[in-house]
Amino acid sequence: MSAAVRRSILVVAGIGDGSGTGASTARLFAKNGYRVAVISRSPEATSKTAAEINAAGGEAAAFPVATYTHAEINSAFNAIKNHWKDSDIRVSVFNAAAGVWKGFLDVTEEDLKNSLDTNLVAAFAFARESILAFKDLPLLDGQKKGTLIFTGATAAIRGNKTTSAFAAPKHATRALSQSLAKEFGPQDIHVAHAIIDGGILTNLSKGRRNDPEWEKDSAKRLDPDSIAKSYLYLAGQDRSAWTWELDLRPAHENW
Amino acid sequence: MSAAVRRSILVVAGIGDGSGTGASTARLFAKNGYRVAVISRSPEATSKTAAEINAAGGEAAAFPVATYTHAEINSAFNAIKNHWKDSDIRVSVFNAAAGVWKGFLDVTEEDLKNSLDTNLVAAFAFARESILAFKDLPLLDGQKKGTLIFTGATAAIRGNKTTSAFAAPKHATRALSQSLAKEFGPQDIHVAHAIIDGGILTNLSKGRRNDPEWEKDSAKRLDPDSIAKSYLYLAGQDRSAWTWELDLRPAHENW
Amino acid sequence: MSAAVRRSILVVAGIGDGSGTGASTARLFAKNGYRVAVISRSPEATSKTAAEINAAGGEAAAFPVATYTHAEINSAFNAIKNHWKDSDIRVSVFNAAAGVWKGFLDVTEEDLKNSLDTNLVAAFAFARESILAFKDLPLLDGQKKGTLIFTGATAAIRGNKTTSAFAAPKHATRALSQSLAKEFGPQDIHVAHAIIDGGILTNLSKGRRNDPEWEKDSAKRLDPDSIAKSYLYLAGQDRSAWTWELDLRPAHENW
Amino acid sequence: MSAAVRRSILVVAGIGDGSGTGASTARLFAKNGYRVAVISRSPEATSKTAAEINAAGGEAAAFPVATYTHAEINSAFNAIKNHWKDSDIRVSVFNAAAGVWKGFLDVTEEDLKNSLDTNLVAAFAFARESILAFKDLPLLDGQKKGTLIFTGATAAIRGNKTTSAFAAPKHATRALSQSLAKEFGPQDIHVAHAIIDGGILTNLSKGRRNDPEWEKDSAKRLDPDSIAKSYLYLAGQDRSAWTWELDLRPAHENW
Repeated sequence: MSAAVRRSILVVAGIGDGSGTGASTARLFAKNGYRVAVISRSPEATSKTAAEINAAGGEAAAFPVATYTHAEINSAFNAIKNHWKDSDIRVSVFNAAAGVWKGFLDVTEEDLKNSLDTNLVAAFAFARESILAFKDLPLLDGQKKGTLIFTGATAAIRGNKTTSAFAAPKHATRALSQSLAKEFGPQDIHVAHAIIDGGILTNLSKGRRNDPEWEKDSAKRLDPDSIAKSYLYLAGQDRSAWTWELDLRPAHENW
Repeated sequence: MSAAVRRSILVVAGIGDGSGTGASTARLFAKNGYRVAVISRSPEATSKTAAEINAAGGEAAAFPVATYTHAEINSAFNAIKNHWKDSDIRVSVFNAAAGVWKGFLDVTEEDLKNSLDTNLVAAFAFARESILAFKDLPLLDGQKKGTLIFTGATAAIRGNKTTSAFAAPKHATRALSQSLAKEFGPQDIHVAHAIIDGGILTNLSKGRRNDPEWEKDSAKRLDPDSIAKSYLYLAGQDRSAWTWELDLRPAHENW
Repeated sequence: MSAAVRRSILVVAGIGDGSGTGASTARLFAKNGYRVAVISRSPEATSKTAAEINAAGGEAAAFPVATYTHAEINSAFNAIKNHWKDSDIRVSVFNAAAGVWKGFLDVTEEDLKNSLDTNLVAAFAFARESILAFKDLPLLDGQKKGTLIFTGATAAIRGNKTTSAFAAPKHATRALSQSLAKEFGPQDIHVAHAIIDGGILTNLSKGRRNDPEWEKDSAKRLDPDSIAKSYLYLAGQDRSAWTWELDLRPAHENW
Repeated sequence: MSAAVRRSILVVAGIGDGSGTGASTARLFAKNGYRVAVISRSPEATSKTAAEINAAGGEAAAFPVATYTHAEINSAFNAIKNHWKDSDIRVSVFNAAAGVWKGFLDVTEEDLKNSLDTNLVAAFAFARESILAFKDLPLLDGQKKGTLIFTGATAAIRGNKTTSAFAAPKHATRALSQSLAKEFGPQDIHVAHAIIDGGILTNLSKGRRNDPEWEKDSAKRLDPDSIAKSYLYLAGQDRSAWTWELDLRPAHENW
């Protein structure tokens, strides 16, 4: 059997309740021939997302973690490799996030720890496992060994009044992505960072806003499926022109 | 006849000798069904590029200008609209550039004027004509009235020792693109800026470098066809997730 | 006579009506022992500012220009050197600016030309004359040959809805300042850029706002004298730690 | 007794072996009338620095911590307030840092934890104590309640090949500083961030480089005393023109 017949796996970490960017990414890559490994802290959402993809004719499996520690993320990657031995992890998307919007003096030591653990330490662990998974693979289609994408936010490029504990790890993860892009580009691994600069349409944001006009107007909020399309585009870029960073925002956003 | 049957026109300004980003963009959009209007200061390159596209089964026409003044760019856009009355300008790519790499004290008043005229004043004029062409159109496929893309460079985000007279207008054009993205996004016009951060494979760069290894190694230099693909991607983004800015560099670039 | 006894000259270009940053800079440097050359397009404001400094025991002279062309700025510098033959130009502050706040489609070709001429082309010419004036001088106090400071604005780092024709040259001038800082730092010339991020208290802004509360509250607007203090600080930095860029804004500014 | 006679305290955290930025800052502020509280993980360096200041006629006290946890930093601030009951903490400088320069795959979980704890978590804790110390004070000289300064680095604005585990927390701390500047400026607390972009002359760097030429040439490396001067300048800025961020680099640095 030649390397050419091996299937590609997408690993996505962070899917919330299954209605956002992570789940959209999982579905879109599944439709495009990827086997999809879903890592998340919600066993229910993980299973549901995988089941939906399988029901739709794709191939997905759930790899829930209790917390995003190095050990658990390492175990999840090992389980993924074991689950699909004839396939290679080729795209990884780090989409886990824990938002904290509080005045600085209300940020507790625990708030900070949680924010750093999920937004930053987990990103390091996920990046490590992804790069280790990619680094000894042959080039795929002569282009790259793998693609690692981080979902960033406005808070990755700008601190603001109530974002000290969120902007800090998001800036940090952006810096990680840039460091990795510079270090591993020459090793044929593509690392990218997407700045999501606007509200994303998820069950959570729908509930919070309760604004049907906002939901309906595609120029006012980001559709997770549209974000997923940008990730598929990034994964498909040929080695002559890789993007480290792009921003994504609704057409009518004020920024 | 309904609006739906009207064809889309790409206008691209700046094609050098026909071997770089502008010509690749013209060819790729032609293959994707666009009528292509080529604006350039070289009558030969303009004609040749249009002729090649026509010979390959596409549709292109040449609109040479003597210089990139407001008046000439205005005339070119008028000629384009007149040439294809049943089509609409939907994508504009400003790719004209005049590089100046000199120690600051060697930059003459004339150098600066030429650099500003081509890199910046022409960008304003081109943007004006593009936005005027888009603004009264209906949404295309329900997404946008049109897409205006600027080809930027490393010098758009960083001044350097020998780039004072080039970085200045490239920063300025980036600022223009950001201002326009903010002003016209809410009016359904998508404005984007691509930071080309590396050497592009053109006849000119091949001649200058005379380095067959560099030419052959797709991870070392940008292929204009790859840049063109990113422009097609930008033009195709749906209104829920528009990119203002992305960077593009070869996989092995040191940055 | 030794070099040590030569006096230092400050050249400042751009003083509006004499109530803003340029005039404050002139006065503060005069108080600190500099001879002060005032370049401006207003003969009245230039003369008045110089006269006030002389009346207060300083030494200043007016060098009005009709427009900020290379030729006129060159003449002004020659006149300054001629005026004080026993002194050296040691600090130059480029403070000329022409604000344009208009929707993009309302920006005329003339608006753009004026904005580029005053905000950018003049900055190049002024920088050229300053660096030529500095480059053959001995180090002053063992630290530097001279200091060139550009007054920037929010528009130097961010394009916005109504700032296309202003943000463009302000970004460009910032790029110029960075290029120069990199090129001439190793030649012992200090180049700096100050981002003034807020409203400055001038006769003009007072008249526009007509808001005595705003005028009185020092946390709400920039005092030109405070900006001048930062320029004196920059000029005094020793060669071990030079600042290229700092921002300045009122304490209570929302940003 | 009126508030006016209360003395001002500088708190500085992070002094290495007493030969760098932290110690220079302590000495300079002591010379300018501040009581100086030195927080550091080295009991010896802390005591030595305080003793030197006292011997030179200043007033300083050592507040060593075992590690930079919230609890220990909180204790240190309480001890400081208790030590000088008739004085107010008016300036705080966070200078603690733990550099990590390693290829990403060599960064251990422990490396990351240490880097985050010292560079980032400690910064949050130090900021919290500083702001709590400032917030109920009257304005000093009618200008501000207090000034909080973070020592940043090149790695705060740019990730690089071997800096993933250092750039991440330095970017994060910069984001923290920006968030705080925006949140607490309107509450009369000045927060600033200094980007130290070059090698600092310390015992450690001297030993590492073993390059007497480099040591002697003030245009090649940052003198900690020069950095300290910039901190004194920031602390002295009046409320009409506060700097959030400035960069500092040697005159001859290539950047």
